[in-house]
Amino acid sequence: MLVVMQSHATEEQVRAVCERIESLGLKAHPIPGSGRTAIGITGNNGAVDLGVLESMPGVIECIPVTKPYKLVSRDVKEEPTIVRIPTPSGDVLVGGTHLAVVAGPCAVETEEQCLVIAERLKPTGVRLFRGGAYKPRTSPYSFQGLGLPGLKILAKVRENYGFGIVTEAIDNESLDFVEEWADVIQIGARNMQNFSLLKRAGRAKKPVLLKRGMSATLDEFLMAAEYVMSEGNYNVILCERGVRTFSDFSRNTLDLAVVPAVKKRSHLPILVDPSHGTGKRHKVLPLSRAAIAVGADGLLVEVHHQPEKALSDGMQSILPEEFAELLAEVRQIATVVHRQVN
Amino acid sequence: MLVVMQSHATEEQVRAVCERIESLGLKAHPIPGSGRTAIGITGNNGAVDLGVLESMPGVIECIPVTKPYKLVSRDVKEEPTIVRIPTPSGDVLVGGTHLAVVAGPCAVETEEQCLVIAERLKPTGVRLFRGGAYKPRTSPYSFQGLGLPGLKILAKVRENYGFGIVTEAIDNESLDFVEEWADVIQIGARNMQNFSLLKRAGRAKKPVLLKRGMSATLDEFLMAAEYVMSEGNYNVILCERGVRTFSDFSRNTLDLAVVPAVKKRSHLPILVDPSHGTGKRHKVLPLSRAAIAVGADGLLVEVHHQPEKALSDGMQSILPEEFAELLAEVRQIATVVHRQVN
Amino acid sequence: MLVVMQSHATEEQVRAVCERIESLGLKAHPIPGSGRTAIGITGNNGAVDLGVLESMPGVIECIPVTKPYKLVSRDVKEEPTIVRIPTPSGDVLVGGTHLAVVAGPCAVETEEQCLVIAERLKPTGVRLFRGGAYKPRTSPYSFQGLGLPGLKILAKVRENYGFGIVTEAIDNESLDFVEEWADVIQIGARNMQNFSLLKRAGRAKKPVLLKRGMSATLDEFLMAAEYVMSEGNYNVILCERGVRTFSDFSRNTLDLAVVPAVKKRSHLPILVDPSHGTGKRHKVLPLSRAAIAVGADGLLVEVHHQPEKALSDGMQSILPEEFAELLAEVRQIATVVHRQVN
Amino acid sequence: MLVVMQSHATEEQVRAVCERIESLGLKAHPIPGSGRTAIGITGNNGAVDLGVLESMPGVIECIPVTKPYKLVSRDVKEEPTIVRIPTPSGDVLVGGTHLAVVAGPCAVETEEQCLVIAERLKPTGVRLFRGGAYKPRTSPYSFQGLGLPGLKILAKVRENYGFGIVTEAIDNESLDFVEEWADVIQIGARNMQNFSLLKRAGRAKKPVLLKRGMSATLDEFLMAAEYVMSEGNYNVILCERGVRTFSDFSRNTLDLAVVPAVKKRSHLPILVDPSHGTGKRHKVLPLSRAAIAVGADGLLVEVHHQPEKALSDGMQSILPEEFAELLAEVRQIATVVHRQVN
Repeated sequence: MLVVMQSHATEEQVRAVCERIESLGLKAHPIPGSGRTAIGITGNNGAVDLGVLESMPGVIECIPVTKPYKLVSRDVKEEPTIVRIPTPSGDVLVGGTHLAVVAGPCAVETEEQCLVIAERLKPTGVRLFRGGAYKPRTSPYSFQGLGLPGLKILAKVRENYGFGIVTEAIDNESLDFVEEWADVIQIGARNMQNFSLLKRAGRAKKPVLLKRGMSATLDEFLMAAEYVMSEGNYNVILCERGVRTFSDFSRNTLDLAVVPAVKKRSHLPILVDPSHGTGKRHKVLPLSRAAIAVGADGLLVEVHHQPEKALSDGMQSILPEEFAELLAEVRQIATVVHRQVN
Repeated sequence: MLVVMQSHATEEQVRAVCERIESLGLKAHPIPGSGRTAIGITGNNGAVDLGVLESMPGVIECIPVTKPYKLVSRDVKEEPTIVRIPTPSGDVLVGGTHLAVVAGPCAVETEEQCLVIAERLKPTGVRLFRGGAYKPRTSPYSFQGLGLPGLKILAKVRENYGFGIVTEAIDNESLDFVEEWADVIQIGARNMQNFSLLKRAGRAKKPVLLKRGMSATLDEFLMAAEYVMSEGNYNVILCERGVRTFSDFSRNTLDLAVVPAVKKRSHLPILVDPSHGTGKRHKVLPLSRAAIAVGADGLLVEVHHQPEKALSDGMQSILPEEFAELLAEVRQIATVVHRQVN
Repeated sequence: MLVVMQSHATEEQVRAVCERIESLGLKAHPIPGSGRTAIGITGNNGAVDLGVLESMPGVIECIPVTKPYKLVSRDVKEEPTIVRIPTPSGDVLVGGTHLAVVAGPCAVETEEQCLVIAERLKPTGVRLFRGGAYKPRTSPYSFQGLGLPGLKILAKVRENYGFGIVTEAIDNESLDFVEEWADVIQIGARNMQNFSLLKRAGRAKKPVLLKRGMSATLDEFLMAAEYVMSEGNYNVILCERGVRTFSDFSRNTLDLAVVPAVKKRSHLPILVDPSHGTGKRHKVLPLSRAAIAVGADGLLVEVHHQPEKALSDGMQSILPEEFAELLAEVRQIATVVHRQVN
Repeated sequence: MLVVMQSHATEEQVRAVCERIESLGLKAHPIPGSGRTAIGITGNNGAVDLGVLESMPGVIECIPVTKPYKLVSRDVKEEPTIVRIPTPSGDVLVGGTHLAVVAGPCAVETEEQCLVIAERLKPTGVRLFRGGAYKPRTSPYSFQGLGLPGLKILAKVRENYGFGIVTEAIDNESLDFVEEWADVIQIGARNMQNFSLLKRAGRAKKPVLLKRGMSATLDEFLMAAEYVMSEGNYNVILCERGVRTFSDFSRNTLDLAVVPAVKKRSHLPILVDPSHGTGKRHKVLPLSRAAIAVGADGLLVEVHHQPEKALSDGMQSILPEEFAELLAEVRQIATVVHRQVN
């Protein structure tokens, strides 16, 4: 924390702030400048909330300095984390030089739907299948997902086709089931700061795919991962899925610069979801290429064999054939950045 | 839904879109303009996701028209809802001409802390007390609240001073306890789209105070209230607490225009939280006045007797004496807008 | 500027950064913390761009500390600036305890239109009249304003009714005319960072009303005023008119918290424009009350006698009768905050 | 425009709205739905501002339908525009399969600086050189550019090395000089809605590079291009350079999805500026790759041989050697998307 004094702050005011800091068991480092004095503070492990210094006489501003995350930080672990997802057809790796692609419908609608999509995805070589059994929907009157029967359908997809299964948990109850039936536990954007759910995911034995909240800063995103890791689950995969801005031509604004920013601060892998990130079918292919080009560790793509009949998100789902083309282009871009798709 | 065709769309393309609409059991109304044709759609009760029409040849855009909310809407109930909060000292009303003010610390820290604050708030005439027993914190290493013992401290505040108690639930487990021990169940901004929690709150027997999410649109905010109401709990109080924007001089951007906007669309009452809404102590008083002047149905204000020692949010907490002054000014503004503070 | 080092930065890296700082003629103040070292920098008058330190080995971040504005700052002048606007009916004061209200149509359309509106505004007691002769419009095909003939119409309004005239200049050419014909030179939101225009306004002999840009931070807003003042014109009135956010129910998000924020940092007066700030007629009255309640030094309100026939912004213009009511309520709120409308 | 009526609007109210529409010379198309009536409007060429209908009794909302741009639209011209930039070493093409890359320092500082950078850029094969002679700076106390002498330095770069020159004009005066001395006239983000300047650029005989404003919607961006084209200059190149959002880890949020969005609506080419778009040197390379992968028609990159001594934007400038590497990777990505760098 750095405390900036007003240019006309008196010596007494500077001294009073220093004494307050010392009284909290911390160390004050006054830095007299030509115009004004600033006071650095050291020794704070995060337990003391120093913002209150801002209301002391002569203080103009308090600026936080130290980043609050620990386990997610490159300070703690320099080499990139490679998350290992066990599937019937062998482990899928995410991170380092390994790119992971996840494909499948937004929602599990029927067994037939999932099997048809899986059947048509299989030849593309993609190895992770997604599909929501629990659906967080803006309206209580929209389709809310099949629940446990949906998870059982996904398990059949795994059994029949060898895919690893990625699916969302929306509360502690559904997380119990997802942990039992799937391979990767997804935490959705709306739950990125559902700390109760994050702690539960941190006690799970399976990898967690954590989506960035719609208006989450980089620090908040990493702190959400810190919640999971602080409970002992180190297998966290981040996922950028677009943030909310004034920009109105797409559902969200895909913030691809977060990828190099995450890589600078953290060792965790990060995927990109171009389907939610744009909300429009014709943008999924170009943004998928861009995501790999920017250095993402993989993609999460919505694929449906009949998008116009999808119970949710049909507008942003592509056809299995379009996905095959997407994957082919993505593989070429991956080569340019010296990485390969699992 | 309105489907806008490209200006060079062919008659066949227009016809194909109309046929697709009719095949879904809906009615198509083509409106041929000088430049292009638009097609209105009626008969959709929300079950059909029409965004997919956007990928049909010749279509440039689909524009949603009908608002998705029902129970929260003024279309359903014209007169304002007045929520009744039973307290030991009689009912507190929120809505209509009745303004409700809630005051107290961000977090319940100790019994002594709460009793001291309650003791000093009592003479101001405020009748609702707030304090968090379950705290959603960005960092897993920050104080997370006392939990059930914190609720019992709040119960003692009610018993000793006659306040109604407003406190937050963060998951289904804590909601059970909050429903048992408090008078109003608060759902925080980070949980505004925790639909599992909203449904549980909808089955509770006590009023719900629902805070707007950090990047929630008006529709999403009202739909979150719709979730609660759709389960049978009609006693919902909305609360604006600032949204996230590029603006960096305050913690959030308090969006006071949402108050007349909510009142145009919904019959539900809406409070304003100037403490979280600004994050800075010196802005709490002016924004409190503004909130009442704009037509809000009350305030939620953080008050602490020793803000510099607060375990959370000290930076935005005001002293009980400052709150007394605030309440005095607020009462004057209330008179101008023909309302009175409970 | 504060340079934050990585936790595993070596002593050599810290030393290298310090040496680079000293080589630039500045002073380095290393502050060794338990986790990491931070380095304070003093002696920088703004001429040296220190961001480049961020690319030195071991550096994680550079945090700017000193605010870049000088003349607009309360550090330079503690008491509030009171701008004096000469009008045929005597000076109108803005700032301190003096609130100024400006009313009139968005655009000057015809002489008759302006005279009718002025005639109907006169009895309300408002003393400043607004109306655009040069209109910045999103579309080149929209009405662009009458130009010089429009200014002459405004001069007639001044002559006939004694109003002071506030009108916008959009480039150096129009500023010459506005300076000649009007009493206050308005710089619009889209030109807030048209630095060429700001400098020209700084050389004008009349007060400048400077609107906040649609996505201007507080610092940028104050720096724009600094541009005007740095050329010698100290009569600057700021104006909040809403910023652009994700929020879609109003044209802009009126950021009322900027008022106390400006007052904390600067001595300049600040008005609020609830018409552009909301873009909706039914929000103008409540937000006008809120603006005065939050501490603004006045209002800029669009009034039209036939909003449905207005050539621009009819949607947000109120009738003269509605304005009279607005002014009555505003006067009551002004009393509560110990101020009076000029 | 579509007018949405309240669900309990009376038949008289619907009729009154229709009559008002017809009285304005337009045609009303009522669409009675099960819940409410909507009224489509045709015949409006943009001259009538229909927002005022929103204040008629029974109306809940007015939704604009027709896009306001004409000349920039794919409706008018389906094939992509290829802008031809004449340079001493032959024309450089932008658009279609032709990618154009522009490199050079943020500001022209000295003749030596520009010649050194040009010398080191030449071997990379890049053919367009950028450098600002007129600099829009947030602070009046920052370096404002060399002006005309700066343009003459750029002319020497053209003469000595055969580069085409891209440089910014900030007002009508500087545009005269830029048109005379440079090959492409850049309009900066802060001036995207400086309509006076856009009109002047529309009368220039040289191509215009138009940067997106910091909070410009897609419609506003295209309308700014429409201003230039409406004056007769059809050689417009758009440029995405990041928008302003809450996201705080980079200077701006690069909105790459705007590229496919522009291509869907307009025939104009669009470049991406990863330097301003991110503000951080280590993000320039990955975002450059992503920009080409998403389908941009080229790049605008800040290169400086001594970034730590740059008078502006050193933090986001890369070295000539880094640029060579960037260009090599960009050429590989270009191949994947079937395009080639000029």
